[in-house]
Amino acid sequence: MSYNTFGRVLRFTTWGESHGPALGAVVDGCPPGLSLHENDIQPFLDARRPGQSKFTTQRKEPDAVRILSGVFEGPDGQQRTTGTPISLMIENVDQRSKDYAEVAKAYRPGHADYAYDAKYGFRDYRGGGRSSARETAARVAAGAVARLIIPDVIITAYVSQIGEDMIDPAAMDFAEIGNNPFFCPDAAAAERWAKLVDDARQAGSSLGAVVECVATGVPAGWGAPIYAKLDADLAAGMMGINAVKGVEIGDGFGAAKLSGEQNADAMRSGADGPNFTANHAGGIAGGISTGQPVVCRVAFKPTSSILTPVDTIGRDGQNTQIMTKGRHDPCVGIRGTPVVAAMMALVLADHKMLHRAQCG
Amino acid sequence: MSYNTFGRVLRFTTWGESHGPALGAVVDGCPPGLSLHENDIQPFLDARRPGQSKFTTQRKEPDAVRILSGVFEGPDGQQRTTGTPISLMIENVDQRSKDYAEVAKAYRPGHADYAYDAKYGFRDYRGGGRSSARETAARVAAGAVARLIIPDVIITAYVSQIGEDMIDPAAMDFAEIGNNPFFCPDAAAAERWAKLVDDARQAGSSLGAVVECVATGVPAGWGAPIYAKLDADLAAGMMGINAVKGVEIGDGFGAAKLSGEQNADAMRSGADGPNFTANHAGGIAGGISTGQPVVCRVAFKPTSSILTPVDTIGRDGQNTQIMTKGRHDPCVGIRGTPVVAAMMALVLADHKMLHRAQCG
Amino acid sequence: MSYNTFGRVLRFTTWGESHGPALGAVVDGCPPGLSLHENDIQPFLDARRPGQSKFTTQRKEPDAVRILSGVFEGPDGQQRTTGTPISLMIENVDQRSKDYAEVAKAYRPGHADYAYDAKYGFRDYRGGGRSSARETAARVAAGAVARLIIPDVIITAYVSQIGEDMIDPAAMDFAEIGNNPFFCPDAAAAERWAKLVDDARQAGSSLGAVVECVATGVPAGWGAPIYAKLDADLAAGMMGINAVKGVEIGDGFGAAKLSGEQNADAMRSGADGPNFTANHAGGIAGGISTGQPVVCRVAFKPTSSILTPVDTIGRDGQNTQIMTKGRHDPCVGIRGTPVVAAMMALVLADHKMLHRAQCG
Amino acid sequence: MSYNTFGRVLRFTTWGESHGPALGAVVDGCPPGLSLHENDIQPFLDARRPGQSKFTTQRKEPDAVRILSGVFEGPDGQQRTTGTPISLMIENVDQRSKDYAEVAKAYRPGHADYAYDAKYGFRDYRGGGRSSARETAARVAAGAVARLIIPDVIITAYVSQIGEDMIDPAAMDFAEIGNNPFFCPDAAAAERWAKLVDDARQAGSSLGAVVECVATGVPAGWGAPIYAKLDADLAAGMMGINAVKGVEIGDGFGAAKLSGEQNADAMRSGADGPNFTANHAGGIAGGISTGQPVVCRVAFKPTSSILTPVDTIGRDGQNTQIMTKGRHDPCVGIRGTPVVAAMMALVLADHKMLHRAQCG
Repeated sequence: MSYNTFGRVLRFTTWGESHGPALGAVVDGCPPGLSLHENDIQPFLDARRPGQSKFTTQRKEPDAVRILSGVFEGPDGQQRTTGTPISLMIENVDQRSKDYAEVAKAYRPGHADYAYDAKYGFRDYRGGGRSSARETAARVAAGAVARLIIPDVIITAYVSQIGEDMIDPAAMDFAEIGNNPFFCPDAAAAERWAKLVDDARQAGSSLGAVVECVATGVPAGWGAPIYAKLDADLAAGMMGINAVKGVEIGDGFGAAKLSGEQNADAMRSGADGPNFTANHAGGIAGGISTGQPVVCRVAFKPTSSILTPVDTIGRDGQNTQIMTKGRHDPCVGIRGTPVVAAMMALVLADHKMLHRAQCG
Repeated sequence: MSYNTFGRVLRFTTWGESHGPALGAVVDGCPPGLSLHENDIQPFLDARRPGQSKFTTQRKEPDAVRILSGVFEGPDGQQRTTGTPISLMIENVDQRSKDYAEVAKAYRPGHADYAYDAKYGFRDYRGGGRSSARETAARVAAGAVARLIIPDVIITAYVSQIGEDMIDPAAMDFAEIGNNPFFCPDAAAAERWAKLVDDARQAGSSLGAVVECVATGVPAGWGAPIYAKLDADLAAGMMGINAVKGVEIGDGFGAAKLSGEQNADAMRSGADGPNFTANHAGGIAGGISTGQPVVCRVAFKPTSSILTPVDTIGRDGQNTQIMTKGRHDPCVGIRGTPVVAAMMALVLADHKMLHRAQCG
Repeated sequence: MSYNTFGRVLRFTTWGESHGPALGAVVDGCPPGLSLHENDIQPFLDARRPGQSKFTTQRKEPDAVRILSGVFEGPDGQQRTTGTPISLMIENVDQRSKDYAEVAKAYRPGHADYAYDAKYGFRDYRGGGRSSARETAARVAAGAVARLIIPDVIITAYVSQIGEDMIDPAAMDFAEIGNNPFFCPDAAAAERWAKLVDDARQAGSSLGAVVECVATGVPAGWGAPIYAKLDADLAAGMMGINAVKGVEIGDGFGAAKLSGEQNADAMRSGADGPNFTANHAGGIAGGISTGQPVVCRVAFKPTSSILTPVDTIGRDGQNTQIMTKGRHDPCVGIRGTPVVAAMMALVLADHKMLHRAQCG
Repeated sequence: MSYNTFGRVLRFTTWGESHGPALGAVVDGCPPGLSLHENDIQPFLDARRPGQSKFTTQRKEPDAVRILSGVFEGPDGQQRTTGTPISLMIENVDQRSKDYAEVAKAYRPGHADYAYDAKYGFRDYRGGGRSSARETAARVAAGAVARLIIPDVIITAYVSQIGEDMIDPAAMDFAEIGNNPFFCPDAAAAERWAKLVDDARQAGSSLGAVVECVATGVPAGWGAPIYAKLDADLAAGMMGINAVKGVEIGDGFGAAKLSGEQNADAMRSGADGPNFTANHAGGIAGGISTGQPVVCRVAFKPTSSILTPVDTIGRDGQNTQIMTKGRHDPCVGIRGTPVVAAMMALVLADHKMLHRAQCG
């Protein structure tokens, strides 16, 4: 089956291919009365937009979003959500499908090409079709709507590692994130990465990355045990982003190395709920938020579409090699950062509403 | 909201508390005509059963499963699934609720105690109530049914790391997994772990662990992009297991360190689909299985319930300390191994059926 | 697929066969903190219970419900819902499977026998297996939980017609409903029906019926356009009850005969929302409640299992005749009345919670 | 909550308001490889299109559909479904929102105006906004896709009654349906209705109607007991159509008047499954298709928007009267006919796929 809807009571459905006429999202279940205009969404799309530096794909897409439904003049004269589905559309303008003649005939190792053919019998190979990361523009647009539902939550996402080069946690400064093309909170690392990514790009290679995301202002009590735990929904949301291969909550795999005493986030009496002396748990226990910051780490593999030739087979089953022309991100994790933030917003907004449904 | 159902067309719903009279699972959507008896399920429950060695909790539960519905004498005289819901029940027999007097009054750091209270206003504190890992017995029972739907798939799960001590991949032998109480495929590591875990137990401490799971025999084509990708569903299923904090597919976070060339699973012409020269992807590309083994790694934090006193607050909000009596696993990841395997089976069976629905 | 779960955020899953060891429901998503004991549920099961008069099946089932999970001592010492799944179980005690030897071999016209065989390849023929109306006991138990979520809503269901004999609306008195074995609000009709139903029973025949259900106290605003309209969910819930073949909201098919002026429920200024001068709409407009009583009519066909021989075919495809021994209701609509009321409660409670999720 | 998605494995999501820039549907889960072009969809939209006779609304909408995603050149050079979401968009061109100044201020009795305000706090009043029957254009477009999944099923829908005037079943000829503007299979009735509907229109009144729908070629075995019964899903689908107040399967309310012998659809040995001697059941038993034609009847109330003044209240709660200008169908049931057929196609296609998922 095809399942292009995410969420439980706040749900969004995305559609569209990389080289089709347009792509979009339908956001369903949004509360009524929220002030919503295109310019509430556009800045998040702009952050993800390709072609803004030499470190990302050179495809030029304005990614201008249109709201086609679900808003109307409210009692105060402001344009507001009506509680009905919000249809968001982004037109594709800079397709160059002829670049994909080779991809039509052979499978890029690491890419979804072979798997799509095996499942569906054929595929839209232009720019990766539905398996292209262009789909994530629709998530980012939907995420901007979700943020309006959780105005007290602040979501910060950043790249903490490219290839083997990690940021220095001691040098981390969120104010730096917007000052470089890598969403990097460590100015020195950003400088190193400029060379690292450029080298990879010029070599026709690509790099993996790790993105971290922190949400503060999440109250204790969101999450729906057992099978819609907050961390399980985050894991699904993040793992479903293109090129993601790993997800951690809080200390993640690091927690496997700790003893119970080390991992315990001790509590002290606080004015407004407990004060925690640590946050190994990443703000979630038993699938429910604890009131601490919700912390998530996401691993992106290196882009599969590279200019270096790799052994593969053709649609005819015969041995061949492929090198991928077209325009691609040398490090897809960079532009994945706003997508991670969007999925965090979508999961949290859904769980805020779910909690309200059950617990009033 | 409470969401105690997992799956899309093969769905199971679990219920029950650690110290209630019973717990169970209702498996819905199972194909008709499969031979199913209690003894198809019991061995998997026995593998997860507590009290079998000094390395796990000393609670003694027979975990005997009863099939209450959904089977009947088939045309061949064999008891077979009828296509209607299969109700599985396991009675609790060895509750010792009085051990939990302290837990009733104060919150165990790292445990779900505080989060449940914050969400629901109160909680069944006996043995952790619904947040207890006893719930996973129901998943293991459901997983045994799922395995019947995918008879050609072989699922192997094992512990690859306890605390900081990892197995030697070169020494890995799946035949060893059943020869030690740790589901460890490396005999030397198992010997080391005996001391490691026993020391932790005696010190009133606990240890984290990593569980790996490999499924062979999965054909190319299972998985439902975009929001029910095979890896996203696995991530949700695994992250929702008690004490899990991280999930990786294939190389996971290791892939973030690779270049595109290193990460490419090259293909060569094969008799029956491609032969891959590597499996960095863990058998999944674009959310769809590739025909390679599906590989998943899962990080378990150390058990939160420890005998060492930790700073915390009481239900009254006042500072106190807690040490958890009751009977607990010093390393919850060990008994998590059959649970990981069960979730793998449940996700794969669901996706086999989903693929059949869409693609015939 | 098999889909044994109903509801969106308040969901229940039922399981069990007519002659299996037990049947039950798992109610998921219930708000925490509601006082719930077996004796909150038992009276509704008793109203539906068979064998209470000669006008219903002579099978003797105590239908005693057990709560197996989801409740615990609340802060006030009362047993209260915890917000986790509520497992309800009813044991079957009076199975007489040997009565069904004939049904095993041939298909009862009008019954699900043939359809189940066509779908699943075989069936549990004992007492109708999963297709038996015994399944509705589980709905009635779940419905009793739902009622606790909507304490301000009063649900009244009654039989308005048996065969061709209707009640006199002018003589309708809800206080009469409990005074006769037919849930009939018209004492004179109840007297006529005693003879009517007894005649059918003695003739080995059966009768259809119409059940009406009115819910007062539903505020304006419940319902989820477009595809979870309150009336659409009621229609699904009612049409899925065994033997139901028609559902109307408000005037139903009668509305097709009216002009727009006749059908308009005019409004006058009221203290607390509008006063309506009529309720042709049955309390629902655009899929959303209007604050008027929600009114639903449900048509039950006559019981398919009759003692009169009917032409049919056997499992072998050959012509034969069948007359159904076993114990059956001469008019299944009668005992359908508490089931209709339960489905009304379940749909309304779900929509109360859905409305709260979106609109706060 | 807002729930604008219908279906289980074949799912469609609709969006758009009557006077917004466009409306559409996203069809998800469609099998790959089906030949699909705009002109496979357009004829069904044309059948529903307004402004084609004086008996329907005079709004002029070309209702030209565009396929924005989910199709690509197949291996045979034909444009085929790819298995990814199919986005269908229809632009609105003939909005006249100024007609709705009065509706902005006061509630039309029988319409969703008051209920929407009560739920959401305000509403898009232009042309009824989301509650307008214009939404059904999106269902008709989605239904055209669904038909491709069930090529062996023939769906016929027709109007059998307008106001109190019914067709003569003996005079019924499906070939007549396309010969008149009423989808009427009885030429004499169509002639009478021309005067009946025109009189209502000229009087500023409106009329109710009954639509019947028959699907032949449905094999035995589709349907998913207990809570996704084929008849329950049809009931939900039909009751959710604008202005629908009643749904019957087979004999419906008529079955309530029958005895068990009369209602039994006797079976005789046939070449390919049983031959039934009657079809009181409307092709469904126990929620599963029997192989007989699936028969459904749907009651439409008269259009609520009428030119005759009716008592109502304003948004300010004060008494007033309203007469609805704007352009409206004098009998909304007529154009509801293609919508009923579309919902039948959508439910059947979904159940074909569900059956395949479970039973192979």
